[in-house]
Amino acid sequence: MTRVPDRLERAVERAVSRLTHDGCPPRLQAAVRYAVFPAGNRWRPRLCYAVAQALGDDRPDLTDAAATALELLHCASLVQDDLPAFDDAPERRGRPALHRAFGDATAILVADALIIGAFETVARETAVDPERVRDLTLAITRGVGTPHGAVAGQAWESEAAIDLEQYHRAKTAALFESATAAGAIAAGYDPDPWRTVGSWLGRAYQVADDLADEASIGRGSDAALGRPNAAHHLGVERSAALLDRCITKALEAVPLCPGRAAFQEFVRLIAAKFRRMALPQSAVPEAEERLSAAGGGR
Amino acid sequence: MTRVPDRLERAVERAVSRLTHDGCPPRLQAAVRYAVFPAGNRWRPRLCYAVAQALGDDRPDLTDAAATALELLHCASLVQDDLPAFDDAPERRGRPALHRAFGDATAILVADALIIGAFETVARETAVDPERVRDLTLAITRGVGTPHGAVAGQAWESEAAIDLEQYHRAKTAALFESATAAGAIAAGYDPDPWRTVGSWLGRAYQVADDLADEASIGRGSDAALGRPNAAHHLGVERSAALLDRCITKALEAVPLCPGRAAFQEFVRLIAAKFRRMALPQSAVPEAEERLSAAGGGR
Repeated sequence: MTRVPDRLERAVERAVSRLTHDGCPPRLQAAVRYAVFPAGNRWRPRLCYAVAQALGDDRPDLTDAAATALELLHCASLVQDDLPAFDDAPERRGRPALHRAFGDATAILVADALIIGAFETVARETAVDPERVRDLTLAITRGVGTPHGAVAGQAWESEAAIDLEQYHRAKTAALFESATAAGAIAAGYDPDPWRTVGSWLGRAYQVADDLADEASIGRGSDAALGRPNAAHHLGVERSAALLDRCITKALEAVPLCPGRAAFQEFVRLIAAKFRRMALPQSAVPEAEERLSAAGGGR
Repeated sequence: MTRVPDRLERAVERAVSRLTHDGCPPRLQAAVRYAVFPAGNRWRPRLCYAVAQALGDDRPDLTDAAATALELLHCASLVQDDLPAFDDAPERRGRPALHRAFGDATAILVADALIIGAFETVARETAVDPERVRDLTLAITRGVGTPHGAVAGQAWESEAAIDLEQYHRAKTAALFESATAAGAIAAGYDPDPWRTVGSWLGRAYQVADDLADEASIGRGSDAALGRPNAAHHLGVERSAALLDRCITKALEAVPLCPGRAAFQEFVRLIAAKFRRMALPQSAVPEAEERLSAAGGGR
């Protein structure tokens, strides 16, 4: 059986090749590759695979397409987040941010290309199972679009009055929910109980990201950008406890299924990575390193 | 029978309501509406309807979805084109450009919301006819995405060496091709012969737009932005002759079908509008006014 990271990278490479083949403007082609490679942690697609595998993964082509779409959309969101209109980040994963390397115009077009490419990737699998493809597409649009997805989450930062609950849910949890829902749909199962798992993991990720932001000096800090940050309000200890509580909730929410124990093991490994991201100074047992993928970044 | 403009506006309103319902950040909600209403000429969706009706329009829900998706994508492209990273246009359709009214961040997010919403609109109709929905989605991604769609067309402007043939084809013709192809697919017909019709109309539109740009002082001109402009190179008379030749080619390319004559009449009305846009000083017979929709702009 092909290892998940290899399956994912192959599927992502297929999609990117299709988006950038002959006739694509060469600078755009290079910039699309820059946005997607080398791999970051690929949390969302790996979560999608883990759910599908816990449920039998009987349509692997659909799972590949769903995971690829989630990753292309995530990469698009990172390119946009770094733009001057948002965080104006000079760097990402130890290299110049894409807009610094290729210019703002190309960065905006790369995000477009990745978003459109994500939907194309899923639509191509319609013949495999039209109903699942429909549900997959709608699970993904719900996670990334408006009124409640990642785009809405980002938009809350431009509002005069921020709805904190909606903000956190839309900004981060929605795409984790989509990832677990997409894995369940690809494998032919009801996505709703899996949304709860994704939602808790998304909240855990948000807390970890807030903690990392508070601890770091190099990043564009939330405080400087006037953004809500849970760690800033709760303090490090209570935030770390909240992170653990979210993980426990995620573990409890995993539905009964053939691969429940294996999936819970995957959640524990994710949790260890989140903790290390949040609290880099804390000791982390070496066994938990197994989950590590190439590259850093979120 | 409902008139096409009414059908279209109702379908667009349904989609926009879905994208901006309860829980959507209010500023984003207002900005999405600002991008889509009041109606511009709506050329691309009307072309899609005209093709579908020439072929019997046996799945009107699909035609509505296809036309709506095309228009949402077109509106997204206008919002992006006006951004400082591209044309930095202060106005659009006699009002401040969206980024001037709502800020760059919101403008970028509006474009995202519209692109994602376009694919959601089409995916929702999967149950009506999965195969047509798949083909529709892929016809649309081909027209707007990379390597050969509108995103690639825009990207050519950032390249050191521009491939003029690819540039014009991708920047404008691709979305007109998608519009005719989508109409044929929605009605259950082979899209390929209709692509040729769309391609000639797209070229005609590009020539008209270049002529209008040359004639106008108020717009962000191609010359100032260093962009290729056919009218600038050919001169007004030869450009006008080229416009007419493209329309003649489009008319000849219309496949034999029950509604051929009616569709050709629609093309003649479009042609008159393109000519008036290109050569505002020339006399245009009043009968050709019938096609006029509310609002100006492209």
